[in-house]
Amino acid sequence: MSDKTGTAQIGVIGMAVMGSNLARNFANHGYRTAIFNRTWSKTEAVNEAHPEAHFIASESLPEFVDSLEKPRRIVIMVKAGAGTDATIDALVPLLEPGDIIVDGGNAYFQDTRRREKALREHDLHFVGAGISGGETGALEGPSIMPGGSPHSYQYVGKMLEDISAKVQGPNGEEPCCTYIGTDGAGHFVKMVHNGIEYADMQFIGEAYDLLKGAGLSAAEAADEFAQWNTGDLDSYLIEITSEVLRQVDAETGKPLVDVIVDAAGMKGTGTWTVQEALNLGVPAAAIAEAVFARAASSSPELRKAAQAALQGPDGTVDVEDRAAFIEDVRQALWASKVVAYAQGLNLIKIGARDYGWDIDVAAVARIWRAGCIIRAKLLDRIANEYAAGNLETLLEAPSIAAGLADSNPAWRRVVGKAAAAGVPIPGFSSALSYYDLVRAPRTNAALTQGLRDFFGSHTYQRIDKEGTFHTLWSGDRTEVQE
Amino acid sequence: MSDKTGTAQIGVIGMAVMGSNLARNFANHGYRTAIFNRTWSKTEAVNEAHPEAHFIASESLPEFVDSLEKPRRIVIMVKAGAGTDATIDALVPLLEPGDIIVDGGNAYFQDTRRREKALREHDLHFVGAGISGGETGALEGPSIMPGGSPHSYQYVGKMLEDISAKVQGPNGEEPCCTYIGTDGAGHFVKMVHNGIEYADMQFIGEAYDLLKGAGLSAAEAADEFAQWNTGDLDSYLIEITSEVLRQVDAETGKPLVDVIVDAAGMKGTGTWTVQEALNLGVPAAAIAEAVFARAASSSPELRKAAQAALQGPDGTVDVEDRAAFIEDVRQALWASKVVAYAQGLNLIKIGARDYGWDIDVAAVARIWRAGCIIRAKLLDRIANEYAAGNLETLLEAPSIAAGLADSNPAWRRVVGKAAAAGVPIPGFSSALSYYDLVRAPRTNAALTQGLRDFFGSHTYQRIDKEGTFHTLWSGDRTEVQE
Repeated sequence: MSDKTGTAQIGVIGMAVMGSNLARNFANHGYRTAIFNRTWSKTEAVNEAHPEAHFIASESLPEFVDSLEKPRRIVIMVKAGAGTDATIDALVPLLEPGDIIVDGGNAYFQDTRRREKALREHDLHFVGAGISGGETGALEGPSIMPGGSPHSYQYVGKMLEDISAKVQGPNGEEPCCTYIGTDGAGHFVKMVHNGIEYADMQFIGEAYDLLKGAGLSAAEAADEFAQWNTGDLDSYLIEITSEVLRQVDAETGKPLVDVIVDAAGMKGTGTWTVQEALNLGVPAAAIAEAVFARAASSSPELRKAAQAALQGPDGTVDVEDRAAFIEDVRQALWASKVVAYAQGLNLIKIGARDYGWDIDVAAVARIWRAGCIIRAKLLDRIANEYAAGNLETLLEAPSIAAGLADSNPAWRRVVGKAAAAGVPIPGFSSALSYYDLVRAPRTNAALTQGLRDFFGSHTYQRIDKEGTFHTLWSGDRTEVQE
Repeated sequence: MSDKTGTAQIGVIGMAVMGSNLARNFANHGYRTAIFNRTWSKTEAVNEAHPEAHFIASESLPEFVDSLEKPRRIVIMVKAGAGTDATIDALVPLLEPGDIIVDGGNAYFQDTRRREKALREHDLHFVGAGISGGETGALEGPSIMPGGSPHSYQYVGKMLEDISAKVQGPNGEEPCCTYIGTDGAGHFVKMVHNGIEYADMQFIGEAYDLLKGAGLSAAEAADEFAQWNTGDLDSYLIEITSEVLRQVDAETGKPLVDVIVDAAGMKGTGTWTVQEALNLGVPAAAIAEAVFARAASSSPELRKAAQAALQGPDGTVDVEDRAAFIEDVRQALWASKVVAYAQGLNLIKIGARDYGWDIDVAAVARIWRAGCIIRAKLLDRIANEYAAGNLETLLEAPSIAAGLADSNPAWRRVVGKAAAAGVPIPGFSSALSYYDLVRAPRTNAALTQGLRDFFGSHTYQRIDKEGTFHTLWSGDRTEVQE
């Protein structure tokens, strides 16, 4: 046995940038940290670049496992999917009952549920922890959403809280990490976080298109976003939008945003969010529009054909009062953003009910206030509103409903102007339709039910009495009770 | 052996209304038809109710199998899912190489692929056949979308074509049934058919809400739909919308549509369509909005909370010239409908490419012209456009693009008016945004890529040279090539 046996408090597997930054973060918080990567040269490089971390670097997995104190705490930061399973399979024979594996990757929550169940049979603990914040967050403090047994949280909770981002709250420093729920709850919440992130970015893009349509240059738009970042929209994404729009390409002298190919990539979590919303029957169309807008942007043949064939206005917005229009866009952005948060938080609420998780939505909003990509001032208000009462939807929270009422006229004007100008606003208009749909005293679904009864005898309910009814459409058109 | 051994040309399992009607349809076309149901009393009842069919009714599955000539042709019309698997499992030991099982239920296409593969290993043929048309269609002629081996189609194709709906074409009577492609191709196409059906119905509902908002009664709206049914919108769903809206509830004297509970049900195929579009990265947001609108309508707690809390206009549309507005709505409905068809047909095109099916989209449009729920005059034009050229998207077809150009101003006015009036139009506005998105020379995806590069080093491409680039956002903000 080497002298490092059993001395590390935490181990990190996977020395790509997220893993190594997370390991450095643990070390920076005074934890004796073991590191391992399949390729030793990578581990060695990280170790040599960061002598201040005093890592315990191992060349083999058994050596790495031996270097940890018991019960062992191991954070996996490898490529989600097959990479995670391979790492777990290699680890299991080396571990002992009570050891804890934390998967910090972007795992699909159903995979996490499967893995947690499998490891439980080995008396091992599996913590699926969503981690948001990118590379910088991993190093300086991400938002962490851990799921798993309450028992396992006793062993890893404090460490994760220590390395997480912090918010100054009324009671001092609050960590952006909290126990989410059993098995896949953490990765589910992280998935929804990313879905909201997709929507946030789509809305920002629509706002930029509208400002551009009203004649603003990229730099002028950057100024507006910077200004917006001082108010209700104060958030990381608005802040960096201003930075990106202000960036000038050194080579061409043009705004960088004008030389970037307009085809957005994606890595799956947005898609999962919408597919899960469909599974659970939770309306989340604003998030869906964001995912589909990326898909459209990355469909070159479709776009080429459509660009050649389709006519319509050129995206120039007819604006009388530019300042007033900019303010309208700001309000439309805020209102749409609130709708996306409402849809995402509803998905968490219904998901918790369906999968048996006891998720505190207020706590989720609280740990999103710093560290993660969607961190925003608004989340403080959302957390308080959820803490104050058991909300069916964020939209009904008093301060939110009031804000939406205030921004209603602007939101509607913006959707109308965009439609007239040919500016694509799938997100803004979907969010507005959701708002109008859920508040409508009656919806067209009654007609849908009538049609379904006509062509498929699917039956319908009546508003005035119990029962299931069918009209004899191909008969004498009387109504029968089923 | 009884005297009926080996004499039936086709057998139908499952004597619920779809199965019994399909069996009667075969018999009406002169086929000697065997019938079977798990419960003998049900088989007996169908047999006794239809002496004219001269069914060969069997009490046991072995007897039923023995009653068929070889190679046996068996159509399964049972509850999709576990019911289908159970029926197949019971059949397999009784069949011989070369026998053919046709699944006429609404199976998920991936299940059909799995079953086809499993049965192929037993030298059995499995034909996943989408069937649309409801009960009446099953009896009088549905639209049939069979997938499976080309070999199997030689044995069952003519029978299926015989019982399918017919369209009078330039070359005489054309059946609404054609070979779609291998394994799950037929059920895939049927799934997309249903997705389009969801969108069609949502658009009709939005049109009705707008007419109502402009002051039309249900009966007046019924008149408009009947009028629309004489033109470009001529279709089964528009026709029956007029019938449903005209229906007066005997009990209350009110329009029936006003006493039906406005919570729309669904059975999964719409959900699958959107989930598959997400899997394949095919933008299909208009269909997604239709599915999510149904989900919203069926979320009573959400609606109750939102109705109590949210303010906004009451859905009354500000209309100066009622006739002109009605015409605008008609055009918006037509244009939105075209977009949903474009999205659905694109999904079929990309699905065929990804799953290795050689699907003739023109032929698909042709067999949807009659028998099925989305049958519409427009499909004749769509079939001709696809036959005339290899379309990347329906939208680029000359007559379609021209029609969309014509309806552009009306479509935009309607979206603007709906937004102002508080009428939820998720479908109309999503379709318009899709139109504006795919034809846009530049989209906001460039900003998205800039943001993704900022927070996650996801890199971007440049419009002016090859390569993958990254700006050192937290460094000196120069650009590096990866």
